[in-house]
Amino acid sequence: VDTAWTNFGDLHLELPDGVGRRQGLELALRAAVQSGRLPPGTTLPASRTLARDLGLARGTVVDAYAQLVAEGYLRARAGAATTVAPGVGPAPSTAAARPMAVGPRPADLRPGDPDLGSFPRQRWLRAMRSALATAPDHALGYGDPRGDLDLRVALAAYLGRTRGVATTPDRLVVTSGFAQGLTLLLHVLRADGATRIAMEDPCLVLHRTIARREGIRVVPIPVDDDGARPDIGGDVAAAVITPAHHFPLGVTMSPQRRADWLTWARDHDRVVIEDDYDGEFRYDRQAVGALQGLDPDHVVYGGTTSKSLAPGLRLGWLALPERLVAPMVAAKSTADQRVATLNQLAFTELLRDGSFDRHLRSRRTAYRSRRDHLVQALAATTPWAQPVGIAAGLQLLLRLPEGGPTEADALEELARRDVLVGGSVVHDHHRQVPGVGGAALVVGYARPADHEYGEAIDRFVAALAGLA
Amino acid sequence: VDTAWTNFGDLHLELPDGVGRRQGLELALRAAVQSGRLPPGTTLPASRTLARDLGLARGTVVDAYAQLVAEGYLRARAGAATTVAPGVGPAPSTAAARPMAVGPRPADLRPGDPDLGSFPRQRWLRAMRSALATAPDHALGYGDPRGDLDLRVALAAYLGRTRGVATTPDRLVVTSGFAQGLTLLLHVLRADGATRIAMEDPCLVLHRTIARREGIRVVPIPVDDDGARPDIGGDVAAAVITPAHHFPLGVTMSPQRRADWLTWARDHDRVVIEDDYDGEFRYDRQAVGALQGLDPDHVVYGGTTSKSLAPGLRLGWLALPERLVAPMVAAKSTADQRVATLNQLAFTELLRDGSFDRHLRSRRTAYRSRRDHLVQALAATTPWAQPVGIAAGLQLLLRLPEGGPTEADALEELARRDVLVGGSVVHDHHRQVPGVGGAALVVGYARPADHEYGEAIDRFVAALAGLA
Repeated sequence: VDTAWTNFGDLHLELPDGVGRRQGLELALRAAVQSGRLPPGTTLPASRTLARDLGLARGTVVDAYAQLVAEGYLRARAGAATTVAPGVGPAPSTAAARPMAVGPRPADLRPGDPDLGSFPRQRWLRAMRSALATAPDHALGYGDPRGDLDLRVALAAYLGRTRGVATTPDRLVVTSGFAQGLTLLLHVLRADGATRIAMEDPCLVLHRTIARREGIRVVPIPVDDDGARPDIGGDVAAAVITPAHHFPLGVTMSPQRRADWLTWARDHDRVVIEDDYDGEFRYDRQAVGALQGLDPDHVVYGGTTSKSLAPGLRLGWLALPERLVAPMVAAKSTADQRVATLNQLAFTELLRDGSFDRHLRSRRTAYRSRRDHLVQALAATTPWAQPVGIAAGLQLLLRLPEGGPTEADALEELARRDVLVGGSVVHDHHRQVPGVGGAALVVGYARPADHEYGEAIDRFVAALAGLA
Repeated sequence: VDTAWTNFGDLHLELPDGVGRRQGLELALRAAVQSGRLPPGTTLPASRTLARDLGLARGTVVDAYAQLVAEGYLRARAGAATTVAPGVGPAPSTAAARPMAVGPRPADLRPGDPDLGSFPRQRWLRAMRSALATAPDHALGYGDPRGDLDLRVALAAYLGRTRGVATTPDRLVVTSGFAQGLTLLLHVLRADGATRIAMEDPCLVLHRTIARREGIRVVPIPVDDDGARPDIGGDVAAAVITPAHHFPLGVTMSPQRRADWLTWARDHDRVVIEDDYDGEFRYDRQAVGALQGLDPDHVVYGGTTSKSLAPGLRLGWLALPERLVAPMVAAKSTADQRVATLNQLAFTELLRDGSFDRHLRSRRTAYRSRRDHLVQALAATTPWAQPVGIAAGLQLLLRLPEGGPTEADALEELARRDVLVGGSVVHDHHRQVPGVGGAALVVGYARPADHEYGEAIDRFVAALAGLA
């Protein structure tokens, strides 16, 4: 088939051979409408424009338009552009894709998301305005693979001040979140010969998925009441731990255990990867700084804005030991590892003028009060369920008593009552048989909007009481 | 060491053992300033706040602040907060990191970036304001791994209308750019047993890098004046081609060759991956629609906003055959593969109200006029250098005559005169020995700002003339 195409008028048409030009144009337009390529409401180019683009006489286009108006495919109104008529073409395929609202809105207490309703939209817009007003043109390019320099300068100061991280802009790498940072680190370690990495047991199941995807075997790290135990020898390339607030058990690592990890890293010349996923949210007096600050040459520090602002920003960072900087920058240099630049610039504004600090302080107060509310409601109604790991973070672990429902049964029964929480078994390295004790729920008390929180907790506690 | 930490006041301090509380606080503050963790200008918490957070008497904090003011570490002014004094602490490490301006600004005609000065900043800000005003809270979460539904609806209509792509929102996946899309496709194909993929020879060197990173061997596809030739048998999982405008040779694939590729894909039940990297920019009448529209079940269509708006947005898309949708969505479901959501919402606005069309039309006019300017300047001054592939895109290939300078020499001499262009040898699969003929430069005429373009071309052509 010899075809002619146009996209000059931003309208792509294929004119068939073997028929006259007017008829060919009619066929092409009709096919485009029938197939849904030109959906109802689409504005067609002016006849003069389309004629020029296709190399046709203007009259040919006018006639073809008129014919299709007569057939009901197009709609013409005096003084307005010709459009595709409503109701023609195939049924929109989006109807099926758009999720249907079914039943009541669930009380959603799954861990992972912060209260997205608290995102400082106005402040973010002002920061975006300022970024767009002042950024040099090159800031709209692919950008420095390490991340914007101004952001790294602001981050180094912020992390030092609030989390005790000892780093410099040169040793920071901006990421799209901890998952990207971990993926790149594992890639770099594997290129250096690594085949095994240690991760806490339990740990966020996603991290094991990432290791598997990178072809690296995961060795479990035992966790007790002092946090993760470095009883793993040196036969791993690195260890991923959550010292400030273990996920999902909620343990804060003891000072002695922190020292033990540094000894482990130095003795074996290995790196500890510190996932500080909710380090900004500490509710009691004994606050905990980053392990990284105690030995910046043996600890990688990772954080994000996913809990403090919103996951949709896709913004995080790693503070790296010197020797990992060059290979990480190399791994980040391909286009698919870059981070959207305008978000970096806007976040820099929030760091610089203190509005990120103010936002965190306000969120900390709100989440602490939510935690208190939840703990009190549990004590009053379901005292047999034991909340642990409540000193920090955006979720708590709720241990169910021996002899009660299994975790799987509890999750299913709660879901039946439109209450969603997380399970704990899924995070164990060797998934326990559901029903064999140790049942515990992971309750993300940060997720609901402020105005929904009270009702969500009422429904959760009532549904939980029904399990006893 | 038994340590106490605080980050309650968003100031992290480690109070040493074995000394009094006031002295301990002084030591901790002094160390934080000396190390640069608290850089000059940092505002300290009010003494009342810090005292409460650390569990100290307020007078202890007041005394410690006063001592450090006396020592010159801090600065106090009546009625204002206490700050870290200017000039204390280590020299800022950013001095070394910030690139120094050296010599004249080069005439930068490397391919890859569009004119970043043409990015519609005001329009983008309005779209961002609208997105922030109307988006539901959940739009700030991790988001649908396929990309925002409204964006996919708008994209399906746009791609159908302007590029002849036959797809639906359900078969579109939003990516951070073509590189991410290719990476995920190769990952999916490899999981299905693929070990080899075909890529044009030459092709963008980055694509071969990505295949190598994914552990997939690259088989070269020969390219002639009709475009890529499907003389590769069926022993590859897929073929990546650039039908609309070959990179870097600039060939537009002939209709017969397009048909040959579809035959190849159907006969071997393989997939063609169509990289439509600059498909919006076609300057002559015979425009070329997407190959994908001819057989949506055997062609993956990939495009981005990196040439049409700005690479810093990190926004692209793939239109997939039905059978690849589920595995691609699974591969995209981990957090590190998600795309920043607010950019998706803002771009949807531009697609919906026609401002993206208007921007493209204006850019197309500007780049066509730049191309004409460049071609005329070359004809007038260096008629021995032959521009090819000029019908479309943002770059042209400039063939240097036999017996002239080698490509490496030409690039080096141009760079010595502060003129930057791309080379072509680097894109060949088997890197030719520099100096063995076939020398050609890749000239990206879209990159300079409008007001710099004339001078950049003058300098390039003058430097080129000096090579003869």
